Amino acid sequence: MPKLDSVDLFYVSMPVVEDISDGSQDALLFRVAAGGKVGWGEAEASPLPSIASWIAPMSHGFCHPIASSVLGETIDSPADIARIAARVKRRSLDILQTDHTLSGLDEALWDLLGHLREEPVWRILGYKKSWPKTPYASQLFGDTPQQTFDKAKKAATAGFRATKFGWSGFGLGTPKQDADHLMAARDGLGKDGILLVDAGCVFEDDVERAAKRLPALKAARATWYEEPLDRDALGEYGKLAKRTPKVKLAGGEGCYTFLMAKQMMDFAGVGFIQIDAGRIGGITPAKQAADYAKAKGVTFVNHTFTSHLQLSASLQPYAGLKEHELSEYPVELKDVAKAITKNTIGRDRNGQIVTPDAPGLGIEVDADALKPYLIDVQIRVGGKTLYATPTLRA
Amino acid sequence: MPKLDSVDLFYVSMPVVEDISDGSQDALLFRVAAGGKVGWGEAEASPLPSIASWIAPMSHGFCHPIASSVLGETIDSPADIARIAARVKRRSLDILQTDHTLSGLDEALWDLLGHLREEPVWRILGYKKSWPKTPYASQLFGDTPQQTFDKAKKAATAGFRATKFGWSGFGLGTPKQDADHLMAARDGLGKDGILLVDAGCVFEDDVERAAKRLPALKAARATWYEEPLDRDALGEYGKLAKRTPKVKLAGGEGCYTFLMAKQMMDFAGVGFIQIDAGRIGGITPAKQAADYAKAKGVTFVNHTFTSHLQLSASLQPYAGLKEHELSEYPVELKDVAKAITKNTIGRDRNGQIVTPDAPGLGIEVDADALKPYLIDVQIRVGGKTLYATPTLRA
Repeated sequence: MPKLDSVDLFYVSMPVVEDISDGSQDALLFRVAAGGKVGWGEAEASPLPSIASWIAPMSHGFCHPIASSVLGETIDSPADIARIAARVKRRSLDILQTDHTLSGLDEALWDLLGHLREEPVWRILGYKKSWPKTPYASQLFGDTPQQTFDKAKKAATAGFRATKFGWSGFGLGTPKQDADHLMAARDGLGKDGILLVDAGCVFEDDVERAAKRLPALKAARATWYEEPLDRDALGEYGKLAKRTPKVKLAGGEGCYTFLMAKQMMDFAGVGFIQIDAGRIGGITPAKQAADYAKAKGVTFVNHTFTSHLQLSASLQPYAGLKEHELSEYPVELKDVAKAITKNTIGRDRNGQIVTPDAPGLGIEVDADALKPYLIDVQIRVGGKTLYATPTLRA
Repeated sequence: MPKLDSVDLFYVSMPVVEDISDGSQDALLFRVAAGGKVGWGEAEASPLPSIASWIAPMSHGFCHPIASSVLGETIDSPADIARIAARVKRRSLDILQTDHTLSGLDEALWDLLGHLREEPVWRILGYKKSWPKTPYASQLFGDTPQQTFDKAKKAATAGFRATKFGWSGFGLGTPKQDADHLMAARDGLGKDGILLVDAGCVFEDDVERAAKRLPALKAARATWYEEPLDRDALGEYGKLAKRTPKVKLAGGEGCYTFLMAKQMMDFAGVGFIQIDAGRIGGITPAKQAADYAKAKGVTFVNHTFTSHLQLSASLQPYAGLKEHELSEYPVELKDVAKAITKNTIGRDRNGQIVTPDAPGLGIEVDADALKPYLIDVQIRVGGKTLYATPTLRA
């Protein structure tokens, strides 16, 4: 049975990282090799703490370095990936960073398994067909309603059937100001455009303030109201959900275990669960979340703000769910995120995207293009080098 | 107003760390200085990923190095500590390790504030009196019921009015085998001894298997049934709680935010909430949890498995709550954990412990004793040294 010969972690970054909400400015990539094949994954995580969790000296029985649970393991089936993940989670339970790190590893293992079997991941996950998804463009509200109108118009003209507007000033002014932006967005998109609204946790745990925006959201026919409250405020989400029969709540990007996603669905009353495979622990728990969502009547959506490698990984868990058709689609990637992949997941003539019908994640990593972005890291503990940036090869 | 001149992180460890559930084998200490005073705190966290989160290069607007939110800030009141914590949590929201790291920082800031004001932390928190607590000794079940009996007898003889038995084989055999151990423990403790049982998440999310132990727990008059299920399985805890009117559920040690603790109380039906100040984000969120527990009729208990510095920090949040009288008390600390403090919190002639009535946490850190355990760490990124172990001084 193929044995994991090597697992390498690569930290790549733009030369200058800006203090803006753009998660595509750096990345932590995982390269795994077994049976003569290679798999790649990406953790949507702060690279340095994740690298540290990979090689951190043992603190006690539930605080092992993650690497110690992985190297030398065999991989031949999804059960092997699940076994490795369970081993990591148990032996590194008390390292908080673990699930973020595991996300990149799990994705790489699925990609590897797909290459070993010469099948796309979604087929190994049990789907017969990968259905087209409707990608939505994410952008910020304008500074004025006129600007918001112009942005909406532009997205619609570019062929996006769905558009998401994110915070900026949303929730910081009066409900009337927010209402003006919402109506401007609706006017710009036209009556058939799908309007999604992201409040960026602006109301913290204040259900009343969050609820004051509901009439305008309803009037503008917003499809969802994303993260109005703090990610952990499950009870408060639940209260708000009861007051929004017409506009469904969306959330879940912060979930880093399946059980957290389950809690969002069980207690927070979300109508859309947004899962980032690069954060939730990889494709394995993301698929559990998709299964649970389907059974519960919640709509699954990927959360993706980085490379097309990550986009493919986040699409796999629900590729075969026809009715779950929206998809977050990164449109303004930084050069480093573009450099990660040789191929991309493009929009077809209907403006839709399809999860690749190719082995593994169906994305080829471009080692040569990445080299200029590779960050040299050295971690020495007690006189020993525990991590030094490995040589980057495809 | 005093300004934070320096914050130093120290990783100390036993020369050899064993693969056992003993969290006292290493520690990450925080030393903060302002206005000519010094404060110390301890994160109950894997040291290396926490150090990495402290200095990790920015990934985007919600992924700043934690240090960048702290150095140069002013500190004069609890509101300043809350402000610094909120700043850290917002600017490092997407570093999963953040709350563990913040725990040590927050404790150190409270200790510092106590020294600046020459008052114990619990008094600054608003308590008029620090009430005695009944410490419980934590140990593993024996391999045989006879061994469990002997251990219980020994703890009772040593003057412990309360004893906790942890897993080992609990839950792995038949309900009858567990029942034999529980009755042996009860017999050894005598009829007045307080018996606490820790299942160490052994039943994962299987409510039925967890419930099969309830009759024996009731028969042995166990005061609590700790962590029968996975820490995130809130709904399953809730179901189990409805079936245990006589034996209350206990949990919460894994909580690393106040909102997680609130969820345990809101949805998991726990009767005891076990909070480790070194994990939940420090004394600030631990006090919020204590306030919420009090209002909700849940009993607050500290979770502590490391030094007496950590013990003091974990006692402060509920020092003034008379009815919440149990306390986890570390009894078999490794040498490195003993070396951290010059003084300890001892048991009085009634076998009880009291949170120190002295400035700050009331614990003096022993820099000289710690020096042999100090681990030399160097983290270099892109040719720059971002962390090198600082000089250890009191």
